[in-house]
Amino acid sequence: MIDLHLIGIGTGNPDHLTAQAVAAMNHADLILLPRKGSAKSDLIDLRRDICARVLTGPTRIVEFDLPVRDASGTYLGAVNSWHDAIADAWNAQVTEHLPDGGKLALLVWGDPSLYDSTLRIAGRLKRWGMEIAVRVVPGITSIQALTAAHAIPLNPLAGPVTITTGRMLREHGWPKGAHTIVVMLDGGCAFEVLEPQGITIWWGAYLGMAHEALERGALADAGPRIATRRADLRARHGWIMDVYLMRKEQTDGA
Amino acid sequence: MIDLHLIGIGTGNPDHLTAQAVAAMNHADLILLPRKGSAKSDLIDLRRDICARVLTGPTRIVEFDLPVRDASGTYLGAVNSWHDAIADAWNAQVTEHLPDGGKLALLVWGDPSLYDSTLRIAGRLKRWGMEIAVRVVPGITSIQALTAAHAIPLNPLAGPVTITTGRMLREHGWPKGAHTIVVMLDGGCAFEVLEPQGITIWWGAYLGMAHEALERGALADAGPRIATRRADLRARHGWIMDVYLMRKEQTDGA
Ligand SMILES: C[S@@+](CC[C@H](N)C(=O)[O-])C[C@H]1O[C@@H](n2cnc3c(N)ncnc32)[C@H](O)[C@@H]1O
Ligand SMILES: C[S@@+](CC[C@H](N)C(=O)[O-])C[C@H]1O[C@@H](n2cnc3c(N)ncnc32)[C@H](O)[C@@H]1O
Repeated sequence: MIDLHLIGIGTGNPDHLTAQAVAAMNHADLILLPRKGSAKSDLIDLRRDICARVLTGPTRIVEFDLPVRDASGTYLGAVNSWHDAIADAWNAQVTEHLPDGGKLALLVWGDPSLYDSTLRIAGRLKRWGMEIAVRVVPGITSIQALTAAHAIPLNPLAGPVTITTGRMLREHGWPKGAHTIVVMLDGGCAFEVLEPQGITIWWGAYLGMAHEALERGALADAGPRIATRRADLRARHGWIMDVYLMRKEQTDGA
Repeated sequence: MIDLHLIGIGTGNPDHLTAQAVAAMNHADLILLPRKGSAKSDLIDLRRDICARVLTGPTRIVEFDLPVRDASGTYLGAVNSWHDAIADAWNAQVTEHLPDGGKLALLVWGDPSLYDSTLRIAGRLKRWGMEIAVRVVPGITSIQALTAAHAIPLNPLAGPVTITTGRMLREHGWPKGAHTIVVMLDGGCAFEVLEPQGITIWWGAYLGMAHEALERGALADAGPRIATRRADLRARHGWIMDVYLMRKEQTDGA
């Protein structure tokens, strides 16, 4: 029997760890740390640092190489086979390091519920017949790191918020009837597809990390500024992760 | 000069406090704890417990009575005058307890960005001329407590999520084009306005607290079960706070 804890660790600031996360890490027999290739090595370094900082007992740490995503085929098809390959990789690690079962932990970036595949991958292991109980320890998300850094509310007073992706924004434009949207997983500057009039943007990259970058303003001015700064930062660090919130003065009447 | 920290404390589980929240509490000269009347006294008790648990230094704690919301007039009008009255009350406390300025902290339920008025009230003090710097410390939200308790993802794979209120759901129905929605601030069972076919619900009340209650299932079955259980729990405890996530099998084509 595998007792799996998916532990949200926040998005870069180790002080965003909760007491529950620290306890769950120390409670584990084994923590698996996936290596994602050299470009994002800062991210595995952060996980190593967090382990070094909070582990006080005999928890073992094992690193393994995360399979690479196949860029061919449809987006969803590629994601699905990638998740299969990751589930295989976990399976191999568990068979090797916890052959008699035990407490396994995975450190999940931000919160495990938000644009993260770990829960779905764990579901595969269950369907494949592994005896596994999955528990989730919440963590601070990049959305909260963004709103905290700018000291802004997420929702308009008593109104709704839509959380979406760069891909959705590019394909479908501003979500119908929405006043406030948050855009994640944007490989570029999807906000450039919008008519900027009446839109304000609050943007953040590397939130919670040493090189945190923030921009805010009317989209017409701030958009080009963000595009330039984003390209510079990405060139300098070799990778970037950013998220932004936008508000429209009025809804589009939908 | 007032250095104000708005500190997210999670939604009931003191282990959801982050290391940053603990540090910010200890860093404060003064923590103001609002009393909200007897029905929700569990909530101020929890704040007192958290203070007792984490404060190690000379931080002072002062309790004060939160003004009562006037139920007359329009909803937004009433909320606005209530926020004015709360800003007045803070002002009085600051004048009395931090006459020469200093570090003030407020403990905010969940995360300060999410359906919480503290940031807006702090904005009033600034507009009224108080010299005040506002910093936000993020906290685990009730949405994350819900998805963690059910061990479910928030978003569909690569898809969007809408966060809304019971009032909006009642007035406008299922948000156009949405597949997954989260409903907060529902004084009743607003899901009852929906055609339940094809909708699954994950519900949680008192999340993170000793009497946490969870339900999940097809809305057609789970809806009536939740309505009964909610009424029982509310009668037993004198108050209830609940949040739920719903998914539709297909979008409505919008
Ligand atoms: C795969 S998702 C994981 C999200 C994560 N589970 C969370 O709770 O924030 C990655 C996306 O999250 C956002 N993100 C994560 N960490 C970030 C950070 N430190 N700064 C800015 N954006 C971040 C970016 O939009 C990025 O494309
Ligand atoms: C005024 S809002 C504050 C939300 C808070 N800032 C957060 O981050 O969750 C109050 C609403 O949050 C939700 N909520 C807060 N705490 C909760 C809990 N412990 N269990 C269930 N729902 C909760 C309910 O929907 C409630 O109506």
